[in-house]
Amino acid sequence: MALLDTIHSPADLKKLKRPELFRLASEIRAKIIDVTSRNGGHLASSLGAVELTLAIHYVFDAPRDKLIWDVGHQAYAHKLVTGRSQAFETLRKPGGISGFPRISESPYDAFSTGHSSTSISAGLGMAHAKRLSGDNHKVVAVIGDGSMTAGLAYEALNHAGDSRGNLLVILNDNDMSISPNVGALSSFLSRTFSARYLQDLRAEFGKFLKSLPRIGDDVYQLAKRSEESFKAFVTPGMLFEAFNFDYFGPINGHRLDHLIDILENIKELQEPVLLHVTTRKGMGYPPAEKNPTFFHGVAPFDIKTGEKLPAAPSPPTYTEVFSEALCRMGKENPRIAAITAAMPEGTGLSAFAARFKERFFDVGIAEQHAVTFAAGMATEGYRPVVAIYSTFLQRAYDSLVHDVCLDGHPVLFAIDRGGFVGDDGPTHHGLLDMASLRPLPGMLIMAPRDEAQLVAMLKTGLSHDGPSAIRYPRGAGVGVPVDWDCPPLPLGKAEILRAGQDLTLFALGRPVQAALEAAEILASQGIEAQVVDARFLKPLDEAFLENLGLSGKPMVTLEEGVLAGGLGSAVLEFFADRGMVCPVRRLGVENPFMPHDHPDTLRRKCGLDVASIVRVSLQMLEKAAT
Amino acid sequence: MALLDTIHSPADLKKLKRPELFRLASEIRAKIIDVTSRNGGHLASSLGAVELTLAIHYVFDAPRDKLIWDVGHQAYAHKLVTGRSQAFETLRKPGGISGFPRISESPYDAFSTGHSSTSISAGLGMAHAKRLSGDNHKVVAVIGDGSMTAGLAYEALNHAGDSRGNLLVILNDNDMSISPNVGALSSFLSRTFSARYLQDLRAEFGKFLKSLPRIGDDVYQLAKRSEESFKAFVTPGMLFEAFNFDYFGPINGHRLDHLIDILENIKELQEPVLLHVTTRKGMGYPPAEKNPTFFHGVAPFDIKTGEKLPAAPSPPTYTEVFSEALCRMGKENPRIAAITAAMPEGTGLSAFAARFKERFFDVGIAEQHAVTFAAGMATEGYRPVVAIYSTFLQRAYDSLVHDVCLDGHPVLFAIDRGGFVGDDGPTHHGLLDMASLRPLPGMLIMAPRDEAQLVAMLKTGLSHDGPSAIRYPRGAGVGVPVDWDCPPLPLGKAEILRAGQDLTLFALGRPVQAALEAAEILASQGIEAQVVDARFLKPLDEAFLENLGLSGKPMVTLEEGVLAGGLGSAVLEFFADRGMVCPVRRLGVENPFMPHDHPDTLRRKCGLDVASIVRVSLQMLEKAAT
Repeated sequence: MALLDTIHSPADLKKLKRPELFRLASEIRAKIIDVTSRNGGHLASSLGAVELTLAIHYVFDAPRDKLIWDVGHQAYAHKLVTGRSQAFETLRKPGGISGFPRISESPYDAFSTGHSSTSISAGLGMAHAKRLSGDNHKVVAVIGDGSMTAGLAYEALNHAGDSRGNLLVILNDNDMSISPNVGALSSFLSRTFSARYLQDLRAEFGKFLKSLPRIGDDVYQLAKRSEESFKAFVTPGMLFEAFNFDYFGPINGHRLDHLIDILENIKELQEPVLLHVTTRKGMGYPPAEKNPTFFHGVAPFDIKTGEKLPAAPSPPTYTEVFSEALCRMGKENPRIAAITAAMPEGTGLSAFAARFKERFFDVGIAEQHAVTFAAGMATEGYRPVVAIYSTFLQRAYDSLVHDVCLDGHPVLFAIDRGGFVGDDGPTHHGLLDMASLRPLPGMLIMAPRDEAQLVAMLKTGLSHDGPSAIRYPRGAGVGVPVDWDCPPLPLGKAEILRAGQDLTLFALGRPVQAALEAAEILASQGIEAQVVDARFLKPLDEAFLENLGLSGKPMVTLEEGVLAGGLGSAVLEFFADRGMVCPVRRLGVENPFMPHDHPDTLRRKCGLDVASIVRVSLQMLEKAAT
Repeated sequence: MALLDTIHSPADLKKLKRPELFRLASEIRAKIIDVTSRNGGHLASSLGAVELTLAIHYVFDAPRDKLIWDVGHQAYAHKLVTGRSQAFETLRKPGGISGFPRISESPYDAFSTGHSSTSISAGLGMAHAKRLSGDNHKVVAVIGDGSMTAGLAYEALNHAGDSRGNLLVILNDNDMSISPNVGALSSFLSRTFSARYLQDLRAEFGKFLKSLPRIGDDVYQLAKRSEESFKAFVTPGMLFEAFNFDYFGPINGHRLDHLIDILENIKELQEPVLLHVTTRKGMGYPPAEKNPTFFHGVAPFDIKTGEKLPAAPSPPTYTEVFSEALCRMGKENPRIAAITAAMPEGTGLSAFAARFKERFFDVGIAEQHAVTFAAGMATEGYRPVVAIYSTFLQRAYDSLVHDVCLDGHPVLFAIDRGGFVGDDGPTHHGLLDMASLRPLPGMLIMAPRDEAQLVAMLKTGLSHDGPSAIRYPRGAGVGVPVDWDCPPLPLGKAEILRAGQDLTLFALGRPVQAALEAAEILASQGIEAQVVDARFLKPLDEAFLENLGLSGKPMVTLEEGVLAGGLGSAVLEFFADRGMVCPVRRLGVENPFMPHDHPDTLRRKCGLDVASIVRVSLQMLEKAAT
């Protein structure tokens, strides 16, 4: 019988002898590899954290002690030992368990995660609450070195050190976030591991002491003159000690014995403690060790070869088309620069990075900085393109408002993963972008109906003297031929794709295709629906809408975004402001926090599928007839 | 003739001999004190940066060299020596110059600021753009130590050090942001100035060297064992060197000679440089030196006494009523905690802080952390109240979405400065809050029509099992009596304040008062307007709106927030979704970036004044009659 089958909660884990833990670690690895090879998922991070997870549960007393897994990519082993080893087969499947920790899923998931760098903040909140309640249980936040580059983590460290929260932060350092890590912090952390550095330490100290000047009014020269000695002295511990954390480490995060011993030693400390653990992403599965970026978030694959399972041939993805188009435009226009917040592969910018290294910027997990940095470049005549997932742009909302839009800097936002993302679920759906961008003056907002139009919109945005956003979905395009040399679109012009006198389907982005299919079905029932691709959420095509409003004919708006404040609302506002009466039915997403599921299922639930569009259209016509 | 009158640009400044610069500094101080004593403004910060400003302009070549003033509170001297000494009389006056640097105001304002901590990001963007363009001019970002607590600044430091941007960051360290500074970083910076520390430096090193263990597999013990030595060794320079910055300082920021010398020395360095300058907030004006928090952003005052000029007696402000109400509720409910991001005075939390020190948290300029920290507290059964200005909440949008709303944690947002703020202008108006919060599931959104209702809403939010927001304006309440023991409001119930059959004025928050006045005027013309206080933006009062929709009578919605996606849109959505036809006219703010001006003027421009409401009502009735 597998050991894992006997583990129904961390209490069972604690009964094991240490050698049994090693066996359990192997079983957990095998299980994670097996299930993700079929379901897809965040493999490499979770493999890297197996021993750490076992050690934490062995030493601490969850759920009374609170465990927070930053981002949650590394939490599969945690799910397996907290009563979810049976359910783990359903990982990321419709109705199955989430790929991330979710409070609603298990009492052992102390905080729901998905976006990076929230764990120290949330953990500190819990720690202070426990202090106020006289509860001595521990709060443990596990955070990767990549997540440490985000400002939120720093804000929390700064407050934790100052307020002396009783919090254990475990820095899971694999010198990677999703891609190889960037940022000064990263080179700082890795500096520790240079053997030469350690050998030089004493020598450097001697030099430093000799170099100490008389300390007086010119103290400001001190740091400068002893520069090299200062630099050599820096260790990761120093950084965290500077924040008033007690620092331990670095220790090897795959040596279970060491991990358990040190956790036992430090668990009684009632103050901010940072334990620095080094791990290897993909540990125990050679293909993932070799290529942790590929195995970060992976689709189903062949366990033996580590190759992706052959999928049905499909058109290029929006991301791929964006990637190619930006390279072509970057070649023509040396003022185009590309910026990513730690997602060069996911956003398709790696091709641009390879060809135009000088004009490519990976700023780390730092969305706010990415956007304000872009604004700075724009003031110097550059045309920065910030390629970012819709859900992560939320973190840069103020930068977008205050640093880009207020002065109208020509920054282009290439917003990927707009709409439903599927398996990653509610933390990753990109549904709030259009409603939150629409109130911003001067912002051009576009969404393509297919991959060819994405290219035209990129040209439109890059030739527009002001901020612009193009919002496109995850996954494959429609399969239309792409004209790389297409002209920009006329600003704020919708496009009539199909004529029809009975009603209008006014759609933006992906739902345009469904509207066209619905119109075919309606035609077969003798109803002629006009299908219009709005193309622009802002500015709206006023001339078109004015005419439509005058006709008083019914209209259905379609958008794969939140309904409150989106395209449909914009249309309602337009008619109301002109005193026009035009029956409008809005199809879109009522609840932006829908669970993980197949995007097509989610669309059906929101009425964005072809059948729903037909049904609603018929209802409207019936109502209009009465 | 005053020296200042001869300075039309930094070129004139450069012609002065150094002794003349001292005289100029005095004149600038006198001018700043004089004008802010009449116009109000950010006095203390600007007085602290006079010498620094002169030194920078003396050494650098603006506008070719780019100067960015973080937040912009300290930029008055900069304005005075860059061609705006005449216009300075109009500071913050309608049509006059802005209290912040604005690109649109002067070529010497390289980046528009207002919110904190953007300068390193924007400056780094400029530096990399200049590198790409082969432009060797310098970029200088001046940032206060308070602003350094924000994650955005850290993200930028991390990227700057890694990408070797040619950027000079001047840390203007006065150990204050607006209130005395908080956070580990602050105590870290101030550690430098202990004379004892400097004397102990050598001794500590000796001890440290003696304590060095054999370096081997147990290297992780190193940091721990030598803890004290490590701590003593830390200097601010160390922190910035860790980020690959060349560090100089700290130097006295009021010694012009020193400042000029060191700037001359370091201006040729083509790499990330941090110059640490210590200044005194309010320098040169004793009342401001004594009470820099009061003189941070100050209303007109008597120069001689430093006392605020007697203002007309007015009702307590919303902030004051919130402050008192929260203290009363905090006394009854030990689970209430209060959180601010470096604004205890501005948000009125200082009273709570004084009475319930343990349950009060000032997290520094760290809005994201404030919100995620609150979510953590809420998971432990606490009722955290995040008191924050509307405009600064934008920076925590993702924390609000992802960490609070997704799991429905009962965090209450006390959103102060909702609506027009007046003198601070477009960076500080709070107009995007309602439209950006409305799409979030489960979020209760309220806005009080007067200070008494604010208390009721606070009770409503604190007894609601989920996230809630109360959004209230800057300045004095209406003057109604406050019942501290009032019951909570029924959820999602609007209140009919005046009956009337001809049309409905449906208002939220502050505009309710104008609607009541407009109804009086309309009544005098024989028109009976129903006046309804919506009270809740979310959930809307469905029963009331359903009845109104059935009546088909005209309706005017009123909100002091952006129109795209706000209250009026919510009403339009409600009617459209039910297929109801009801003429609605929306009054509110079209452009959330309106300039600084008297709030009443801005309201008039948006049609939110009584006369406009009357006019629009009459138009609607006319139209309904045709």
